[in-house]
Amino acid sequence: MSYDNLTLHTDKYQINMMYAHWVQGTMNEKAVFEAYFRKLPFGNGFAVFAGLERIVRYIRDLRFGDEEIAYLRTQEENYREGFLDELRRFRFTGNLYAVEEGTLVFANEPLVRVEASVFEAQLVETAILNFMNYQTLIATKAARIKQVAPNDTLLEFGTRRAQEAEAAIWGARATYIAGFHATSNMRAGMLFGIPTSGTHAHSWVQGHDTEEEAFRQYAEALPDHVTLLVDTYNTLKSGVINAIKIARILEAQGKRMKGIRLDSGDLAYLSQRAREMLDDAGFPYVKIVASNDLDENIIFSLKGQGAKIDIWGIGTQLITAADQPALGGVYKLVAREKNGEYVPVIKISGNPEKISTPGFKEVYRIVNTQTGKAEADYLTLKDDETVKEGKRIKLFDPVHPYIFKHIEYYHAEPLLKPIYVDGECVYALPQLEQIREYHERQLNLFWPQYLRKLNPESYRVNLSESAWELKMDLIRKYQN
Amino acid sequence: MSYDNLTLHTDKYQINMMYAHWVQGTMNEKAVFEAYFRKLPFGNGFAVFAGLERIVRYIRDLRFGDEEIAYLRTQEENYREGFLDELRRFRFTGNLYAVEEGTLVFANEPLVRVEASVFEAQLVETAILNFMNYQTLIATKAARIKQVAPNDTLLEFGTRRAQEAEAAIWGARATYIAGFHATSNMRAGMLFGIPTSGTHAHSWVQGHDTEEEAFRQYAEALPDHVTLLVDTYNTLKSGVINAIKIARILEAQGKRMKGIRLDSGDLAYLSQRAREMLDDAGFPYVKIVASNDLDENIIFSLKGQGAKIDIWGIGTQLITAADQPALGGVYKLVAREKNGEYVPVIKISGNPEKISTPGFKEVYRIVNTQTGKAEADYLTLKDDETVKEGKRIKLFDPVHPYIFKHIEYYHAEPLLKPIYVDGECVYALPQLEQIREYHERQLNLFWPQYLRKLNPESYRVNLSESAWELKMDLIRKYQN
Repeated sequence: MSYDNLTLHTDKYQINMMYAHWVQGTMNEKAVFEAYFRKLPFGNGFAVFAGLERIVRYIRDLRFGDEEIAYLRTQEENYREGFLDELRRFRFTGNLYAVEEGTLVFANEPLVRVEASVFEAQLVETAILNFMNYQTLIATKAARIKQVAPNDTLLEFGTRRAQEAEAAIWGARATYIAGFHATSNMRAGMLFGIPTSGTHAHSWVQGHDTEEEAFRQYAEALPDHVTLLVDTYNTLKSGVINAIKIARILEAQGKRMKGIRLDSGDLAYLSQRAREMLDDAGFPYVKIVASNDLDENIIFSLKGQGAKIDIWGIGTQLITAADQPALGGVYKLVAREKNGEYVPVIKISGNPEKISTPGFKEVYRIVNTQTGKAEADYLTLKDDETVKEGKRIKLFDPVHPYIFKHIEYYHAEPLLKPIYVDGECVYALPQLEQIREYHERQLNLFWPQYLRKLNPESYRVNLSESAWELKMDLIRKYQN
Repeated sequence: MSYDNLTLHTDKYQINMMYAHWVQGTMNEKAVFEAYFRKLPFGNGFAVFAGLERIVRYIRDLRFGDEEIAYLRTQEENYREGFLDELRRFRFTGNLYAVEEGTLVFANEPLVRVEASVFEAQLVETAILNFMNYQTLIATKAARIKQVAPNDTLLEFGTRRAQEAEAAIWGARATYIAGFHATSNMRAGMLFGIPTSGTHAHSWVQGHDTEEEAFRQYAEALPDHVTLLVDTYNTLKSGVINAIKIARILEAQGKRMKGIRLDSGDLAYLSQRAREMLDDAGFPYVKIVASNDLDENIIFSLKGQGAKIDIWGIGTQLITAADQPALGGVYKLVAREKNGEYVPVIKISGNPEKISTPGFKEVYRIVNTQTGKAEADYLTLKDDETVKEGKRIKLFDPVHPYIFKHIEYYHAEPLLKPIYVDGECVYALPQLEQIREYHERQLNLFWPQYLRKLNPESYRVNLSESAWELKMDLIRKYQN
């Protein structure tokens, strides 16, 4: 059972195009594809790139095994044996460049660039998009939540509502990159080293004769980790009162209760009353955890109402990115080999924003050396040396090209890093903690107006003049 | 690397409750949990249960291996070694009853019932909900699409936008149960035997000097499977015209082109014009496939506009259930062992609809023997023999109990089937084709007014009088 082989985690049309290339003798022609999204999710001002570790492992493990070959042999397309033999020998031998995880990224800039034989480059499209789309989406959603509660503890609690098991773990990892502090998912904790968090459920309380008895038994078993869920019967009239009794017992043992958790009702009101009750009883150190279908908008609103909540447990809305559950990442051919040279290609569309940007490109983050802040992301054709030589560049809006400014004193950071070169992995996967710290540094690179939750300023993603002219030329060509 | 071990696919609070039970010596006390959802998704009149095969495999493979134990030893809770030894011996030894995949199900009826030691029953909660929630959600979304296009071919095309790899394959399987005809995901095809579908992408066209050349090369390679994507440059002025040329070439070879695919623009208009062009050219048999962010509402609207589309490729909106990406399934303790007997338990809430229904229950589908149609689902306490003896039953609305009717001539089908009994799997997993056929028969059991997409009639899920009285008794007890 090859459940863990992801080589066929691809769309059938990739296999059919590979077959057609094999039949036509064009399978080894080189192609350059770029993966990007066209629109930032959630109306946010930025996205947080994630998914690279998954992509690296996927590329490394690509193999058509016996089961995959046997399965392909059953297809009604009746692929010739020579093709199946070719697949048996398949390895990824191309180049893959990608943005590092935790990087702030924007619409219409390449996040992953694959330069490989068209045979290889087609196979990997679907999986690369699948991994990048979901993980970037969840990291971005988590970053929005972090923006409204920068000093609170944030817990990812979504597993039961995640879209299957892998969404739960890779999603939890994405939230940790974006600054969450822990997940409830133990497998994510084990596989990725994310701290885990959780105490007891309503069933623990229901499973005892009284709530007080339930709390006492729990505190006896785990005296250093007592956070009590107080809403099984009545939060203020029963739950918090019983929790305070336990806090007293723990103090008598020289221990401190960690917290109480509210999971229903009016969280603003209940947290304020519970805070007063805890403070009045002499337990100002007992934290208040809240959960129940939270997202950045509800947290923002609760804070505006003066809710006394220290720790947020966030589930469904985060792990599914419920207000926009898909990032529309695409993977487009930008150049192809012809007579040994790359020629740029374009995809035309009735929708102007869907017209692709042709050519083998680089992306630079242009950082103003005076302010230390990012000024724009700048896409050049690969052989354009202007930026590398530190020359003055012209930044102009690709939609309104008559709006422009020049910039002279800058540091240009190439965003696409070499990950695979000639099929060899040349990238040392960072530790998760490093990615998380890098993400925090990334945030500091941007003015706050780009980061705010509502109506952020648009950060510039600009084309160089030559990249823009190439695009205009090709559009003209296809319009005639 | 134990990536494929799902035993820790659970929330930390489950482990902590298991630990507390172990410390307190209560781990072997029996408990009965029911999994259900409180509200039908998408405003639909029914849901399609899915996820059981995944649950069966998960339960079968539950094992704490060396890596899991080593990981748990690192937790700050500092679990005692005796507990970890207990986990090493862990096997699921309880009973699990569930509704069969493909069954039409409704809110507030148990879909999975676990009767096991509380130690075992807690561990499995998170994974059971995760599998059931996602797969049921997607099967239901697919069933809605099937309702608006019952005679068309439906293709699942969502992998690149799915929430990670497992959502793609288990989601594809769920759509097939609900009557879809194929998926683009090759791994889903291999693992589950779902037919697969797909031809070529825009990159195939971009990768050739002209569209016509691209089409010809593709048709040469796969002459029996030619569906051409016609919107890379201009659908009507270029794509369809070139496709017709290929159809002629194929006819000259005694072959028939399968179809053309529209992936952007005004699908109603373009499909009508393309249909005319194909018909006028003598190719009435060439099908029109459409894709581009479709869902049941857009398909319904396109049909209303007279679109000439035979085959629908449905991606993002389906595989993420974008308008409601989570089913809020919960898993609630309904009875627990006390002094060797089960006592019913309840969870009270400020929201009346969140109050659980206590007691160890059965669910029957009450089918009117005169009409052959389902009349209601009927929840009884387990020891209630009324239904088994075929006696007259009173159906009344649990929210408005003064509205009732009696029913006498009925067949009562128990919906919860034994899956695991004393830890042994007693259920032969049906073939996917059988599940799909069973689902179709299920649909025939219901009057059309329950099945329609918009404002369906509410199907009755009723409590027996004794189940209702038990609930009222326990509510009164906790309100005093």
